[in-house]
Amino acid sequence: MSTERPLILVTNDDGITAPGIRHLIKIMKQIGDVIVVAPDSPQSGMGHAITLNDNLYCDPLQLKEEENHQEYSCSGTPADCVKIAKQEILHRKPDLCVSGINHGSNSSINVIYSGTMSAAVEAGTEGIPAIGFSLLDYSLSANFEPTTKFIKSITNNVLENGLPEGVVLNVNFPKLEEKEIKGIKVCRQAKAHWVEKFDKRTNPQGRDYYWLTGEFINEDKGEDTDEWALKNGYVSLVPVQFDLTAHHTLKELNNWNLND
Amino acid sequence: MSTERPLILVTNDDGITAPGIRHLIKIMKQIGDVIVVAPDSPQSGMGHAITLNDNLYCDPLQLKEEENHQEYSCSGTPADCVKIAKQEILHRKPDLCVSGINHGSNSSINVIYSGTMSAAVEAGTEGIPAIGFSLLDYSLSANFEPTTKFIKSITNNVLENGLPEGVVLNVNFPKLEEKEIKGIKVCRQAKAHWVEKFDKRTNPQGRDYYWLTGEFINEDKGEDTDEWALKNGYVSLVPVQFDLTAHHTLKELNNWNLND
Repeated sequence: MSTERPLILVTNDDGITAPGIRHLIKIMKQIGDVIVVAPDSPQSGMGHAITLNDNLYCDPLQLKEEENHQEYSCSGTPADCVKIAKQEILHRKPDLCVSGINHGSNSSINVIYSGTMSAAVEAGTEGIPAIGFSLLDYSLSANFEPTTKFIKSITNNVLENGLPEGVVLNVNFPKLEEKEIKGIKVCRQAKAHWVEKFDKRTNPQGRDYYWLTGEFINEDKGEDTDEWALKNGYVSLVPVQFDLTAHHTLKELNNWNLND
Repeated sequence: MSTERPLILVTNDDGITAPGIRHLIKIMKQIGDVIVVAPDSPQSGMGHAITLNDNLYCDPLQLKEEENHQEYSCSGTPADCVKIAKQEILHRKPDLCVSGINHGSNSSINVIYSGTMSAAVEAGTEGIPAIGFSLLDYSLSANFEPTTKFIKSITNNVLENGLPEGVVLNVNFPKLEEKEIKGIKVCRQAKAHWVEKFDKRTNPQGRDYYWLTGEFINEDKGEDTDEWALKNGYVSLVPVQFDLTAHHTLKELNNWNLND
């Protein structure tokens, strides 16, 4: 690592005013020079959405004089924020992109729905080391203090070691006090899924509509998974790749009679 | 495969009226019993978005009397369509979910932005064999006829063989006549990325805004990639997994000093 302070892009999916990103900004300002480009409104569950059929606004915020960093509020998705930050706002490629701290879990299969992780993945595709942080507490008044020590440790490790090519980190925190947390555990994504339940209602005009809800089902008993780590008092750290090829199945599929 | 006709769920991300899904419905009706649940408007670039902060409408369409299948138009994303189909519309788990035919490429890194593929992945997480189909032609008047033979072959293979656990298929078609297509090639996802360009404009009120555009950059020279296959006249078939863990990096990350 050079003696220059690292340039750190901060974003999230809960919106630029969410307590989680405010906590993350505070930590990152102790480590490097911070620029924030985050959604102007909540974007939970946006997956890796990008804005193709609408225009994007991205406006600088007026911060208090004592703040020595810049923030931009963007009308788009988390992935849009990373794209516009890189092309239109930052004067050089950042040394790191951090996303979060999300209000709620992005462990296991939640990674594919996660706006928080989509920002990290987007940065990863552009060759920027990236980490998504999430706390297993959906409350707006969640206590983010216990995450501080671990976020610093993981961030410093990434700045020192870099990340393997094509990989970003998905970090989840249990809802515990700092002294209750046993440490950071490198994990694999648990094999779990959601069983949806739709809450069916009728609007005042007589038309039926639905609210999506659901139950998280984890059948994966492995002690090397993120779900196990979180349940047992650890911070989970999963290396996430965006080459989605199931390489182990290529041989089997080549035996199919596709071209007969 | 049982002698019963397979139950096939059809969806897409270009919206229920797009020519691509109309062609796919026509093919699937030759193979099985079809139920269509698709977005009521275009959802391109929606990635794996789901609708958490808004309600969902999902209404049956009135089809012509000679049509012997059902269609539902849904206000949500492609992933929402699969979820609501499974929970609220279908009376049993479908034997197959097909998504598309997308107007435009979902090869290489485009898979992570793709609403078409998010529907297939969503079905995959629920244990339903699933295939996303895309044609490298964005035009609304694209010619889908050359895809027919290959879609039938791939679909029949999936119905006969099933798919490996945790895997769905990402199939892309070159913009060629049927006789020019050399066959179906099992591939890996090419390592490529987008370099964004933002088209900056000023609205009538004097506020700056952006349109996202970009250039696709493929540095991957491998002849086993989807990009190579498509450029060389093949239909590309990539097995896609939703366990995003970079398993090959777990050992390296375990050597980090995370808990010091």
